[in-house]
Amino acid sequence: MRRPRVVILGVGFGGMSAAKELEREDVDVVVIDKNNHHTFLPLLYQVATSGLNPADVAYPARGLFRRRRRVRFRQGTVIGVDWQDKRVLLAGEDPLPFDHLIVGIGAQANYFGVPGAAEHTFPLYSMSDALQVRNHLLSLFEAAAAREDLIHAGVLNIVVVGGGPTGIEIAGAIAELIDEVLEADFHDLDVHTARVILVEQGPTLLPPFEPALRDYAAGELRRKGVEVRLETAVKEVGEDYVLLGEAGDYIPTRMVIWGAGNRASDLASAIGVAQSRGGRIATNPDCSIPGKPDAYAVGDVAAIPDGNGGELPGLAQVAIQSGRHAAHQVLRTIEGKPRTVLRYHDKGTMATIGRTAAVAQLNNGTTLTGYPAWVAWLGLHLVYLVGMRNRVSVTLNWGWSYLTWDRGPRLILETPRINPPRRDGPYIPPPERVAGKGQQTQEVRPTT
Amino acid sequence: MRRPRVVILGVGFGGMSAAKELEREDVDVVVIDKNNHHTFLPLLYQVATSGLNPADVAYPARGLFRRRRRVRFRQGTVIGVDWQDKRVLLAGEDPLPFDHLIVGIGAQANYFGVPGAAEHTFPLYSMSDALQVRNHLLSLFEAAAAREDLIHAGVLNIVVVGGGPTGIEIAGAIAELIDEVLEADFHDLDVHTARVILVEQGPTLLPPFEPALRDYAAGELRRKGVEVRLETAVKEVGEDYVLLGEAGDYIPTRMVIWGAGNRASDLASAIGVAQSRGGRIATNPDCSIPGKPDAYAVGDVAAIPDGNGGELPGLAQVAIQSGRHAAHQVLRTIEGKPRTVLRYHDKGTMATIGRTAAVAQLNNGTTLTGYPAWVAWLGLHLVYLVGMRNRVSVTLNWGWSYLTWDRGPRLILETPRINPPRRDGPYIPPPERVAGKGQQTQEVRPTT
Repeated sequence: MRRPRVVILGVGFGGMSAAKELEREDVDVVVIDKNNHHTFLPLLYQVATSGLNPADVAYPARGLFRRRRRVRFRQGTVIGVDWQDKRVLLAGEDPLPFDHLIVGIGAQANYFGVPGAAEHTFPLYSMSDALQVRNHLLSLFEAAAAREDLIHAGVLNIVVVGGGPTGIEIAGAIAELIDEVLEADFHDLDVHTARVILVEQGPTLLPPFEPALRDYAAGELRRKGVEVRLETAVKEVGEDYVLLGEAGDYIPTRMVIWGAGNRASDLASAIGVAQSRGGRIATNPDCSIPGKPDAYAVGDVAAIPDGNGGELPGLAQVAIQSGRHAAHQVLRTIEGKPRTVLRYHDKGTMATIGRTAAVAQLNNGTTLTGYPAWVAWLGLHLVYLVGMRNRVSVTLNWGWSYLTWDRGPRLILETPRINPPRRDGPYIPPPERVAGKGQQTQEVRPTT
Repeated sequence: MRRPRVVILGVGFGGMSAAKELEREDVDVVVIDKNNHHTFLPLLYQVATSGLNPADVAYPARGLFRRRRRVRFRQGTVIGVDWQDKRVLLAGEDPLPFDHLIVGIGAQANYFGVPGAAEHTFPLYSMSDALQVRNHLLSLFEAAAAREDLIHAGVLNIVVVGGGPTGIEIAGAIAELIDEVLEADFHDLDVHTARVILVEQGPTLLPPFEPALRDYAAGELRRKGVEVRLETAVKEVGEDYVLLGEAGDYIPTRMVIWGAGNRASDLASAIGVAQSRGGRIATNPDCSIPGKPDAYAVGDVAAIPDGNGGELPGLAQVAIQSGRHAAHQVLRTIEGKPRTVLRYHDKGTMATIGRTAAVAQLNNGTTLTGYPAWVAWLGLHLVYLVGMRNRVSVTLNWGWSYLTWDRGPRLILETPRINPPRRDGPYIPPPERVAGKGQQTQEVRPTT
């Protein structure tokens, strides 16, 4: 008997957790992602600020399932779902049939219609984003060292939009990079002419945290030299400026980092299902997609009811738990058992501001700040990082930075030549797939 | 009294060694490079084949001179030298005056006029090159796994041109990557349908080595599954093919790696001095440039007489020794002492074919192959690698790969968005530089 095939879109926390849950079961699993690696998003900001290597926070997708022959990985571009025939449509490839589908394609930056934001700001949702931030950030200091007049043109004004964990983590890390590393690196530039400006539309940083933690975070950031501007909306972003607040305060800058919120990946719109706020795929309480009984949405792309009329937040823990839950529902469906509702177990949230400074709020009401919160943060991130090799490498990088106040990978590295098209031309199914033969016959001729 | 200013172009082995030699002396040093890091070129092929991280084999240029306030680094693009006024001309910046100039701008691929080679092959002379090779190589296997018909279109035929150390190292490393890593990674692709073809125009691999070592290298490569084709010239390279030999044998391929020889960086032509074979800057035996008494050329860009009517080869040791020598000549000139001739101390050469397989030829005539040569190779490369952090990281990466037969950073990572122009527009000197004032007055206006 043919094993049921589960297709999983995305190898983020949601898709990876679902696949891991299924890898020993009697199902065939195909995991598809546009990248060839899982990215540990909570530490992307450390790649962006030269604290960690890309390979420290990414894990090759195929490496996750090396010993599980029933799990296959496919790097590809999903362009839609054919619900009629239960097939995933891929760019330049055969459609991929599924019996069960788990959609975990994640989130992207939400620009909320701010003019110029999509064109001129730097998001931080992928490894590629992180490397672009690193390249650009370091290049700004190099440019300022070479041409002092550029400082007055705002080349060292770094604006971070958004007072959530992403915003405070990147703002804190940039301030530390300047203080601890760049100051010693640049002999002919006063790096303290650089400004790090954190802009938050609401009245407080870290709204989901308790007031004492919010105040601690704001205080620590200010102590590190970050200008924290609350109740300040971004009105417009240009190539070399940003307009802030109702008055439209003009700030010259060449780098606006956008951490102001996210929305579902654009791909969610192509799947042809009902979408909720921010384009997220509205699910039933069991993570299944209404009207598509064998399909589930998990993680940041999903709007999963929280049981109180709201939706579960876009956190790694939600992605992990919903991914596992969807995998269990697939198995229950195969076994003919009834579905169950996802009961999200909130383990608490954390955010780090920098060296020995963090905030943590556990689900039992305990709150931590400073050194204990920082140590808890370090430990938890090492636990959730994928792969022993990455854990060792991150531990060493952190240890090295902690002891020497230095950072290793402060490299400006670009790979400007885009790879030639890999799967060019319209897809022509090879004859043997049509005819069911084993031998391929497609002719190869030189094209000049 | 004003300290003499030594400007060093390039922070490769030559320029870095020169700067290190001068950092404690009573001179001002300015080091200029287009990248913000020194790259350890002998290990680039391991980055290209997922053995090492970019940050393992690169060292931030500013980090080299952190504690030496008299050495300044400048990331910039040199466009020429104004010999009349002794100034280096930079793109978009003030010209930089010098009293002494050391040119160590390195080499680039030499395509020897082979049609299509410049457009369609992958060189391996910079970190960016190495990352492009890594991205492309891994992408080819992903493409083949997704579309079997592409295998017949040659997508898994990897052609390496050149039987010198670069060619054999990259060919051996690719064969090992396939055997040791990709085979376990790809569950639905027979990776052994991939071919690695090493093409050498001459009658033997590794011409500078002794015959026994050449035979050993060819044997080891063949044992790893590399097709070694000697006395085979590359006639033409296209987007998806290569023509080999006089008969023009057609091989479909999407990846031709060019390791067939190098020439001076294009920039050498812009400097306005006499050039030798391959565009190299012809020097006097003391590394000075004829007719430019305060200028020197070192490393791969220099054609330095070897005392026997020939030129010193393009090796790391030559670059290190010539860089130091040029620095000494600068100091002797300042002290009014006569110049001295560079006496190159040949320490021998090595090349590695893969795990426990290498060849070494020492200057006392000793030759090594196999495990001893491999261990010697590992040790020597660790010694010459810059920075303790990098040594630790490389040791751990090598140890991990040796023990687990796994490789960490097999990631396809692109940073497709090119940074916005950093120093845009024509250079307008700020008023205070002209007027000698301390305050800058350039106005900043929003540009939309």
